Amino acid sequence: MKYVLRHATILTMDTEETVLSDGSLVIEGDTIIYVGKDSALPPSLPATCDQELDLCDTIVMPALINGHTHMGMIAFRSLGDDCPDRLRRFLIPLENVCMTQELAYASSRLAMAEMLLSGTSCAVDMYFFEDVVAAAANEMGFRLYAGETLMEDPHCDAQDGQQGLEKTEALIAQSRGNSLVTPIIAPHAPYSNTVEVLKKAQALAKEHDLLWTMHLSEMDFEMEKYQNEYGLSPIAFLARQGLLDSSLLAAHCIHTSDEDIALLAKSGTRVIHCPGANFKSAKGLARCPKMREEGILVGLGTDGPASGNTLDLFTQMKLYAILHKNGLHDRTAIPAKSVVPLCTSEAAKVLKADHTIGSLEVGKKADILVLGLDQPNMVPCHDPYSVVVYSSGVQNVMHVFVNGKWVVRDHKLTGVSLSQLRDEFFLAAQPFFEEAGKRSL
Amino acid sequence: MKYVLRHATILTMDTEETVLSDGSLVIEGDTIIYVGKDSALPPSLPATCDQELDLCDTIVMPALINGHTHMGMIAFRSLGDDCPDRLRRFLIPLENVCMTQELAYASSRLAMAEMLLSGTSCAVDMYFFEDVVAAAANEMGFRLYAGETLMEDPHCDAQDGQQGLEKTEALIAQSRGNSLVTPIIAPHAPYSNTVEVLKKAQALAKEHDLLWTMHLSEMDFEMEKYQNEYGLSPIAFLARQGLLDSSLLAAHCIHTSDEDIALLAKSGTRVIHCPGANFKSAKGLARCPKMREEGILVGLGTDGPASGNTLDLFTQMKLYAILHKNGLHDRTAIPAKSVVPLCTSEAAKVLKADHTIGSLEVGKKADILVLGLDQPNMVPCHDPYSVVVYSSGVQNVMHVFVNGKWVVRDHKLTGVSLSQLRDEFFLAAQPFFEEAGKRSL
Repeated sequence: MKYVLRHATILTMDTEETVLSDGSLVIEGDTIIYVGKDSALPPSLPATCDQELDLCDTIVMPALINGHTHMGMIAFRSLGDDCPDRLRRFLIPLENVCMTQELAYASSRLAMAEMLLSGTSCAVDMYFFEDVVAAAANEMGFRLYAGETLMEDPHCDAQDGQQGLEKTEALIAQSRGNSLVTPIIAPHAPYSNTVEVLKKAQALAKEHDLLWTMHLSEMDFEMEKYQNEYGLSPIAFLARQGLLDSSLLAAHCIHTSDEDIALLAKSGTRVIHCPGANFKSAKGLARCPKMREEGILVGLGTDGPASGNTLDLFTQMKLYAILHKNGLHDRTAIPAKSVVPLCTSEAAKVLKADHTIGSLEVGKKADILVLGLDQPNMVPCHDPYSVVVYSSGVQNVMHVFVNGKWVVRDHKLTGVSLSQLRDEFFLAAQPFFEEAGKRSL
Repeated sequence: MKYVLRHATILTMDTEETVLSDGSLVIEGDTIIYVGKDSALPPSLPATCDQELDLCDTIVMPALINGHTHMGMIAFRSLGDDCPDRLRRFLIPLENVCMTQELAYASSRLAMAEMLLSGTSCAVDMYFFEDVVAAAANEMGFRLYAGETLMEDPHCDAQDGQQGLEKTEALIAQSRGNSLVTPIIAPHAPYSNTVEVLKKAQALAKEHDLLWTMHLSEMDFEMEKYQNEYGLSPIAFLARQGLLDSSLLAAHCIHTSDEDIALLAKSGTRVIHCPGANFKSAKGLARCPKMREEGILVGLGTDGPASGNTLDLFTQMKLYAILHKNGLHDRTAIPAKSVVPLCTSEAAKVLKADHTIGSLEVGKKADILVLGLDQPNMVPCHDPYSVVVYSSGVQNVMHVFVNGKWVVRDHKLTGVSLSQLRDEFFLAAQPFFEEAGKRSL
């Protein structure tokens, strides 16, 4: 298909930060073949298009990138949110007993639906049964970085880290040539894996030129453990083991000293910040403005639905801006223009995918978000960056294209029935709900 | 009209915190005449209704109450959000030059549309030209506490505080017998009014048995001024003047000592907390959990669109929970169940209107919000309070009734054209935009 999108305010997110008023964009197949002023659009171009969209009352921008989530965990959402022993009372036992391939698959389909409907085209997922999560991404037309979680303790789909590595290798083989799915190696955290498995994970990433990711410097007990056992922070521990590198996406990094930040910067480690989930669990605020000053690439994540509840990045962009403004006691800090890259151009750099996605430029993949300005909360638009960060919400997501495919049209998924996704999810989750019901008593 | 709403999960927000599964509710005229289990609904009751709604996949709860906003300020939204001298560069000069009755009216209509579409039926507004804001509320079917801002400096619709008081008296006379509009006396802040005007405002509130409101303990310069001039906090200064009482709604109260909180509690002063706007302007977090422990009634506000940008209370509820959890370093603090009252039952007590609104009980006015559970972000619903606070967004607001009138139906305003509201706003705001454009250069 060939589409022309006309008369929009276009936030290209290119290196010159070009903003086009009355801009146009042409998609051919999976690729953007024109971005520019509508007045400069060669008349021959729209003439060859299958469809023309007049988007005069919209902002067109790159679709958003979610740097850290756990899509298979939808069944946990709203369960024991404010409970003191939630992890031991609900999460771990329910995951061990009730998490199945069927549930991970149905949950991931619903999670992708939620992300697409909230303008997100791409996510880094770390969970179990990632082979079926990858299959779901292909069906849903969603761009996925799929990471099978590696843990030393026996869990729902592997006996230990080594078995997880084997599953990861299978996923790598299975994903070859897939235009939407890229495998990623995903040890859960330093404290839940042996150093041997962490080193194998890093080596596997290097061997296949892939990214790897883990939770890092997130938990109070984690900070204490490494201090007590090694007299080091977990980041310093990893650095000493040679386990920080420029292919590592470190999720959270809430607790960091200046030395930790220097180690992350020197190694080229990238950081994924999940402010909503971190604040909900009262863990504190990662020092991302300082990290970015030191040259660390930062992306934003929603975390999983068990932690952050919603999977929309508008909430995370707004939180990033206001939490850091307040933390720095400076209302002029963290301008909106510096926040949008965290889910677009900088996020694509985090994923080493900035040649492909993260900005609207000729030759890039057509992962595009169209935000309507017709709802009252979007009026007026003195500054499109400001509108995206401070005003926008899920209700404003009008259209989404992923890899050139029109997947959200007029606020609705195309080609897949939302009620069917929900039915499938509830069917797959029935044993989970029964078990959760017993535990709530 | 007589409606029966059936088969919903009903959060009644009554004093017993009753939650009904498969609940039903009947509205006759402006009043709720039945709330209970659907199985206990007398068959004769639905038989007499004009319309029956099957709400089996929804949460029905009281429509939300916004304790503090400035509806006339839509034109400022997204203008100079991150600008260091925003107040002097944009806000004050544009307000003085361009704020007209026409703009305040059109802006308020759009703000009410935004609030209704985000589940809010009632707001405390403090701005200028409140006579036309009141007219707009009647037209939009919105429940309004209308406060003409009192300021000593000359401003767009009065020369000084005294003239503002006269306008307030006219508003009181004009609003007599109005079922939707209640006047409120609204000095801007202690520092922007003479003590004489503050005392007259308080006396006027007392004379007519009305509420009064002002910004309090919000600004750094305010704290310094009262410390330097009187060796007191602004709250202690007001207390010494006899200017705290149980009809006062103090907005913000960010900076409070234990002594301040004791003074607020002793006097019965109510507090409106606007966490989103406060964090965006890097002013800090009001100590509301402590205030509530001390018996102070607290409500939530969005603040105006110039400060908080969006007027939806879902964002504020979520922020309240997570900011205070993080501030208290306790993920179990501020459970969702304790947050919903801030926009419903406790908010109604703040307004001394809990005999009328804030809960779903027989005899109360039918101000009702229906949240759809059909969108992916609402799946599953282990706990409806948790879903409301952590999962819900504007996109889930399916129906809203205000005073028994069905004002939002299937996510759309009834009886008023949104595009017409926008057109009217842009027409009225044209001189503002021209002037703003010059100042942005």
